[in-house]
Amino acid sequence: MTMKLHCFGESGNSYKAALALQLAGLDWVPVFVDFFGGATRSPDYRSKNVMGEAPMLEDGDLVLTQSGVIQMYVTEKTGKLGGRDSQEAREVMRWLFWDNHKMSSQAGMQRFLMNFLPEDKRPKEVIGFTAGRLKAAFTTLNAALDGRDWLVGDGITNADIACCGYLYYPEPFGFTRADWPHIDRWLDRIAAQPHWKHPYDLMPGNPSDRAK
Amino acid sequence: MTMKLHCFGESGNSYKAALALQLAGLDWVPVFVDFFGGATRSPDYRSKNVMGEAPMLEDGDLVLTQSGVIQMYVTEKTGKLGGRDSQEAREVMRWLFWDNHKMSSQAGMQRFLMNFLPEDKRPKEVIGFTAGRLKAAFTTLNAALDGRDWLVGDGITNADIACCGYLYYPEPFGFTRADWPHIDRWLDRIAAQPHWKHPYDLMPGNPSDRAK
Repeated sequence: MTMKLHCFGESGNSYKAALALQLAGLDWVPVFVDFFGGATRSPDYRSKNVMGEAPMLEDGDLVLTQSGVIQMYVTEKTGKLGGRDSQEAREVMRWLFWDNHKMSSQAGMQRFLMNFLPEDKRPKEVIGFTAGRLKAAFTTLNAALDGRDWLVGDGITNADIACCGYLYYPEPFGFTRADWPHIDRWLDRIAAQPHWKHPYDLMPGNPSDRAK
Repeated sequence: MTMKLHCFGESGNSYKAALALQLAGLDWVPVFVDFFGGATRSPDYRSKNVMGEAPMLEDGDLVLTQSGVIQMYVTEKTGKLGGRDSQEAREVMRWLFWDNHKMSSQAGMQRFLMNFLPEDKRPKEVIGFTAGRLKAAFTTLNAALDGRDWLVGDGITNADIACCGYLYYPEPFGFTRADWPHIDRWLDRIAAQPHWKHPYDLMPGNPSDRAK
């Protein structure tokens, strides 16, 4: 049965789940979540996911939320993307937690504040403060990729898929690829994977829909 | 062999790892990390952990970082705290990721800004903004605990240990137990577990050491 991923194009957290499904070659379709129209705040959505977030995966009767859980489920179903042994599996998990804690959480918020809020509502001090914290995250990721093709082992894993979640988007949020050469080349390597797609091509919904 | 957990009392992220080791009855000792003295920024520490964070667990030659990974390792070693079947295990992971993304990341930062920075350096707009985001996190957690004793299944798991990481600290960061009755009673249930200790009793280092 085809799995359904409830997601939307602007969501890097959704992208992490979508890209794992996609690169593992699973049978799935995206289902548009009208986040900007308030869909994730509705009682119906909350009854399925108390966290009120996208992505949400439906595989028959099984409902999973949190991109990291969906990424691990892809590994459970396919044996792919999770590392080759228990040591690599722990390293993959380590980057998934780091991404959730230090990278995607802040990158997603910053991109929202700098692009999807009306200009007169953007909190300047918050944006300046978060810029400093994001720079620390980019520094850590760039250092980890110095001399390595992939974050864990010799091939792409969920660690790479998690940490790149927000890094292909065109909207400015303080990330300039040229400033981070190891990240820059690693993003090219991920994008060269068979069946890779940009978030706006992999999932429905993008800023130009709302600009109409 | 006794495991070593590099940690410090003020770190709720360290507490999550320490409390999992403690409640699972493992043989471990805390090793003080002088975070406020810059220890996690040293080249020596970074060479062991590129992320430059506490906690860090040493079990013989094995070095693990990220509280979530250490929590999962406790389950791997003991069969405890990880949920009783694959569905519960996924639910536990779901809360671990949510905690890292929405709760501890923001609670830890907010507590730092409101208590451990000099008063004239506290960024007021950031603190106000983060207060709103934390309130959303407390709302989600309180709703999830409505009518339940534990976040997953019928007993304490790593999900509870992760989400409570910052909630026993006395320093103000916008969390008042009386405002969140389901969280309040759940914190009492966790504290009633055999061998439970408060973070300042379980790990070395607390604000009064630095006030001397």
